[in-house]
Amino acid sequence: MIFNKITIIGIGLIGSSLARAVRKYNVAKEISAFDILPQNVSKALELKIVDDASVNPEIVSNADAVFICVPVRSYKNVMLQIAPFLNKNTIISDVGSVKYSVIKDIEDIIPEGVCFVPAHPVAGTENSGPEAGFAELFLDRWCIVTPLKNNPPDAVLKIINFWQSFGMNVEKMDPQHHDLVMALVSHIPHLIAYSIVGTAANMENSLKKEIIKYSASGFRDFTRIAGSDPKMWQDIFIANSAFILDVLQQFSEDLTELQKAIRKKDENKLFDWFANAKNVRKAIVDAGQNVPEDMKKLLCDAKGE
Amino acid sequence: MIFNKITIIGIGLIGSSLARAVRKYNVAKEISAFDILPQNVSKALELKIVDDASVNPEIVSNADAVFICVPVRSYKNVMLQIAPFLNKNTIISDVGSVKYSVIKDIEDIIPEGVCFVPAHPVAGTENSGPEAGFAELFLDRWCIVTPLKNNPPDAVLKIINFWQSFGMNVEKMDPQHHDLVMALVSHIPHLIAYSIVGTAANMENSLKKEIIKYSASGFRDFTRIAGSDPKMWQDIFIANSAFILDVLQQFSEDLTELQKAIRKKDENKLFDWFANAKNVRKAIVDAGQNVPEDMKKLLCDAKGE
Repeated sequence: MIFNKITIIGIGLIGSSLARAVRKYNVAKEISAFDILPQNVSKALELKIVDDASVNPEIVSNADAVFICVPVRSYKNVMLQIAPFLNKNTIISDVGSVKYSVIKDIEDIIPEGVCFVPAHPVAGTENSGPEAGFAELFLDRWCIVTPLKNNPPDAVLKIINFWQSFGMNVEKMDPQHHDLVMALVSHIPHLIAYSIVGTAANMENSLKKEIIKYSASGFRDFTRIAGSDPKMWQDIFIANSAFILDVLQQFSEDLTELQKAIRKKDENKLFDWFANAKNVRKAIVDAGQNVPEDMKKLLCDAKGE
Repeated sequence: MIFNKITIIGIGLIGSSLARAVRKYNVAKEISAFDILPQNVSKALELKIVDDASVNPEIVSNADAVFICVPVRSYKNVMLQIAPFLNKNTIISDVGSVKYSVIKDIEDIIPEGVCFVPAHPVAGTENSGPEAGFAELFLDRWCIVTPLKNNPPDAVLKIINFWQSFGMNVEKMDPQHHDLVMALVSHIPHLIAYSIVGTAANMENSLKKEIIKYSASGFRDFTRIAGSDPKMWQDIFIANSAFILDVLQQFSEDLTELQKAIRKKDENKLFDWFANAKNVRKAIVDAGQNVPEDMKKLLCDAKGE
């Protein structure tokens, strides 16, 4: 057991997966949850994935670790609510997809003696809510930990061990470098997916029906990530806007280059570009990163694992 | 049996899946294949998915139906090669992802008495080559048939029955409308996927490695379709350039709107846009179009089906 009592703040997809994983891998003796939504609190209790849950922040009392699993622009509000009830020596960690802004948002309101070790388990599905979680979500995935200068080494080690318990590979990174990498691999892909799916949603009705009907031919791949939680993503785009706007500029330049190649019927340019992209796909398959988590789960279920 | 002898022109992913499906569902007595690549011919024979195969176009002799399964800008060349060996009353069909341009390319060189019933089975995976095919590729997918004015009704009916034999749902459409719908659901998504994967491929090496490592967080979804056959896609973008450039313009306008919303931190605009996109995803899941063919195959294999 790494911790005696932990409290999970926000019991959605990630929070509820975390609760299930902590139980499954026996990582803490007691799990409680704080959520501002009464329906999430009752769902978590009904699913029996936590020992206790409440809409009252007092539930964090006596926790030796607290995990913030809420949209990234709600951290400050969460901290203001839970701070009066935190014990000295409590370790706070999180699962946020943006690191620099959340550190800035809460570093000045963390009570004396409490430490914040930021983390980002890079795992998720397009589903949301306590019912959507599962203990195997973190298996074989990466967790990026971005320790702060004043973090006690043993607290950092505990957080690293915590995520490793669920089968994650942990990497340490500078918070701003994390935000650049995530802009590239996650935020821009989501933005583009939202954009193209929105373009389709704004088409006249008859055309929209045809898009849904024939979506298997490519469009569908974009809709999976565009099905993610809107509130979570609204926050990410605003919290990481600087890196996102920068990477978006590079993407737009490349798309314009391809547009020009199509207009000029420059077949060599197109072929070289596509062959290059195919190599990236190959590298991802070779790295074993090619099967989505929810498909993996379907496969495990089908195999009776 | 719908046909006595069929010839498949081009024995790649689609051609070889077609051969396997014709055999599995007992749709023709004899299957032969014509391919300009000797390695594809020997692979098809080795896999025993056809009765005969050759790099010589004469192999189409005595076929009562011929299915063109080559990149869309090779049709003219294919027709010039096979025309001298076609019997009267042969039905030619195809699987091309663009319809208007291929009709224009070959309508004047189709021999007297031979008829061309264009078709597009909307199914595929990101893999290529004769080994990548499987008989279930077409199951529960749509096939769009775009008959020409001079097509004899019984030839159209035979082609419709042919694709229905493999579990496809057939829809009739005007060739140009087909090309617009495909620009929306397939060609633009592929172009965008190629573009963003190319943006990543052009990053400095250390960043590229990190992109691969953390690709599960969104980027991966784009790489699946960007792993498709470069030659096939080069042809599609050039053959359907008018519709593609037009839809790309709409996409760029929408992306610029989102960019502006991020810059202005317009959270309501972002939330509404994302919630709208989530509804489109829901419609696709409700329509049962949400699981990729290759994942379905993995699932069937895992279940021992």
